[in-house]
Amino acid sequence: MEANTGSVILFHNAVIITMDPQKRVFRNGGLVVEADRIKAIGQSAEIFHEFSAIAGELVDLNGRILLPGIVTRILTGFVNTHVHTSQQLARGIADDVDLLTWLHERIWPYESNMTEEDSYISTLLCGIELIRSGVTCFAEAGGQHVSGMARAVELLGLRACLTQSTMDSGQGLPDHWGVHSTDYCIQSQKELYRKHHETADGRIRIWFGIRQIMNATDRLLLETRDAAKELNTGIHMHVAEIPYENQLVMDTQGVDHGTVTYLEKIELLQSNLLAAHSVWVNKSEIGFLSKAGVKVSHCPAAAMKMLGFAPVKEMLDAGICVSLGTDGAPSNNRMSIVDEMYLASLISKGREVYSKGTTNPTAMPAEVVLKMVTINGAKSVLWDNEIGSLEIGKKADMTIINPFSWSMIPLHDCISSLVYCMRTENIDSVMCNGQWIMKDQKILNVNEEKIISMAKQASGALLKRAGIRIPDRMNVL
Amino acid sequence: MEANTGSVILFHNAVIITMDPQKRVFRNGGLVVEADRIKAIGQSAEIFHEFSAIAGELVDLNGRILLPGIVTRILTGFVNTHVHTSQQLARGIADDVDLLTWLHERIWPYESNMTEEDSYISTLLCGIELIRSGVTCFAEAGGQHVSGMARAVELLGLRACLTQSTMDSGQGLPDHWGVHSTDYCIQSQKELYRKHHETADGRIRIWFGIRQIMNATDRLLLETRDAAKELNTGIHMHVAEIPYENQLVMDTQGVDHGTVTYLEKIELLQSNLLAAHSVWVNKSEIGFLSKAGVKVSHCPAAAMKMLGFAPVKEMLDAGICVSLGTDGAPSNNRMSIVDEMYLASLISKGREVYSKGTTNPTAMPAEVVLKMVTINGAKSVLWDNEIGSLEIGKKADMTIINPFSWSMIPLHDCISSLVYCMRTENIDSVMCNGQWIMKDQKILNVNEEKIISMAKQASGALLKRAGIRIPDRMNVL
Repeated sequence: MEANTGSVILFHNAVIITMDPQKRVFRNGGLVVEADRIKAIGQSAEIFHEFSAIAGELVDLNGRILLPGIVTRILTGFVNTHVHTSQQLARGIADDVDLLTWLHERIWPYESNMTEEDSYISTLLCGIELIRSGVTCFAEAGGQHVSGMARAVELLGLRACLTQSTMDSGQGLPDHWGVHSTDYCIQSQKELYRKHHETADGRIRIWFGIRQIMNATDRLLLETRDAAKELNTGIHMHVAEIPYENQLVMDTQGVDHGTVTYLEKIELLQSNLLAAHSVWVNKSEIGFLSKAGVKVSHCPAAAMKMLGFAPVKEMLDAGICVSLGTDGAPSNNRMSIVDEMYLASLISKGREVYSKGTTNPTAMPAEVVLKMVTINGAKSVLWDNEIGSLEIGKKADMTIINPFSWSMIPLHDCISSLVYCMRTENIDSVMCNGQWIMKDQKILNVNEEKIISMAKQASGALLKRAGIRIPDRMNVL
Repeated sequence: MEANTGSVILFHNAVIITMDPQKRVFRNGGLVVEADRIKAIGQSAEIFHEFSAIAGELVDLNGRILLPGIVTRILTGFVNTHVHTSQQLARGIADDVDLLTWLHERIWPYESNMTEEDSYISTLLCGIELIRSGVTCFAEAGGQHVSGMARAVELLGLRACLTQSTMDSGQGLPDHWGVHSTDYCIQSQKELYRKHHETADGRIRIWFGIRQIMNATDRLLLETRDAAKELNTGIHMHVAEIPYENQLVMDTQGVDHGTVTYLEKIELLQSNLLAAHSVWVNKSEIGFLSKAGVKVSHCPAAAMKMLGFAPVKEMLDAGICVSLGTDGAPSNNRMSIVDEMYLASLISKGREVYSKGTTNPTAMPAEVVLKMVTINGAKSVLWDNEIGSLEIGKKADMTIINPFSWSMIPLHDCISSLVYCMRTENIDSVMCNGQWIMKDQKILNVNEEKIISMAKQASGALLKRAGIRIPDRMNVL
């Protein structure tokens, strides 16, 4: 598996899970990559016969495996549709504290003291975890210093929709942070769009961000809607996270339920909206989201820890495109979409207890979870014409999985083993846009140890600057 | 870090989390192991000064770390208090199916067709996963062929309480399996006790098993109680797993709630009972468990997937010793106590939604979870006089954690990072009974690749023999 940029790479003797509309899985498949795109896919022998002569590189994915019958898997790269890359340096600063402490004493002081260099380092560190969990594309949930993020994404080789954390109102924000004017919010994002959209060989796109409804004026909501439409890009917003949010919207806006109902009223619910979390939505709001083609990013760990149980099964049943996200490090700690797959299924099976009296082990089967992190992820970031499945003409974004280990053996169920058994240890190599970004578990474009060292230094200095102190939990001597 | 059996090993420059009654954490600690026990523990410099002259081996746990300020952690070995080692070969055979299919079409055909050699191989494979997740001691949940398990445990170097899956009644059991007589059930376990108890340098103990109340006559329950008392050992039983179980007990035994109420009535609730799951217990039953000193093994993933949300917070608040288990591979898929720690906290935080209207991010803090997998685990297996914390005179069962990686950096919270960030990747070395069983991520006493190969072969043959076929989920070509 040598890098051979720009030429033809032929993979053969692999299990290929395409996630295409025909749900094809090749038991012994072959796949050809030319430059940044998939040129061919099919049975291994046929692909080999047709393309081996023109291939600059032949990758036999059976050769590395010692056990007959266990071959490496090729999947389309996973999409993480809600991740705060700027919060990676804040991992561990807000564990086991209540929501107000979380926000006012930890997260806001942290974010408001970040420099662009901090965002850059944080995104580099987060990017390593994303790649190691098989992610090739992510949607930034909204953070500080998009230019710092963009620099990191370009270097890492990932694909991303980057978003500024945007607020033009809200009580409790740190004094020295200040609240930006609506005009500034819109203009700064248009500027970011001009500067970074479609850069890094087309791997970076710029979206509009709304942090959450409690920090947004009506004017910001409406102008964001119109600006995103004008530039033909998406909007990433935290939606219906806690009951308090819905109550506040009911009290101040005179609607009968919560954020989703209000967003419907002002026509912000459109197919370019990525609504993160959407935990506290009722039946008619699920109808609104479905009708408008809004995409939902479900973040299982953060939901369990901070927010509540989203009605994911009901949303999927209503035809909503639900994808998966990790949220940020202080809301979850693990930025692994591999673990979120496992959790998504467990949570959906478990929450049926509350409606039906017992859990439902058949809820949210593995094939649905796999769809959420692949083609649904691609649809959520408005990029499914190019990514989300292994099909001829699509971008070569791929995750290579080595199932030959204690964590996955035995492999009685090809698909469920990927969702319930696979760990980050099994992610062997990752390709994005036709370029290897991790190979044989080595991150290629950055020096991982150097980034860990930079992150330790930068995060220590940032916490000191922000006056954040984490109390000891035990009797430390 | 060279093995040096029988001599004195001195560890220095490590963060040592003792889990002792004083909750001591040494920021820069030292620890001395002599033969199979801990001889000294304290500040690194003092330990080094006092013992370096007599140490046959000096282990500097700062030396391997490149980043100043990040040193390796020493913890007491984790205890997994509910694991079906015989079900490891069944991983993936029963994902996303309902409970009746799970039991009648998959698990019973699987277990009833196992040979002793299958149990041996299954326990070897499971043991590798246990060691890789930092476990030094486990309680077998009850399986086939205890002699096969014992052979594997002796070889792996683990510590274990082994239990036979014991049933003397029950509808739906496979014909060729047959139901054993009560006398046979008791006698066969006494025989196992005579043969294996306190073998493998005292690492193996034999417990009595009751699979579950629906497969046990009253006579079996009572004779098990008396036999365990006579031999001064424990009883491992699945308790209050599903609402149907409680209903059946109410209908047939005339008690007003369920299994726990009935076990109270017949005086089976005693301090040597390890009640696995205990999901469907009411307030007065929590009182019964607490008063009797019964230990509870909470299995977060299996609970979410199959059973429901156990009132763990309420049980801990009532003073019950709750520990953590992984359950078996077909109920969970991941046999990692590291993942169960993370899940235990998420689930307890999340389930407060249903009683309080919002999640409670302060519920089940990291230090409580850490207690559950260490000292509470040791108490649950009736072995806390020798294991469960790092204290002078206790057995040298230890887990060495290397936090220098993308999965744990930055390390702002020493304790929570172990529960929320740590992955199996971070488990570096494991010592049990003063002997290394994994070192620098290499399993020492068995050939891992050979076991994986044996497991693949044995599990394929077993499924064929049992007539179990797993349907394809996608369009496999």
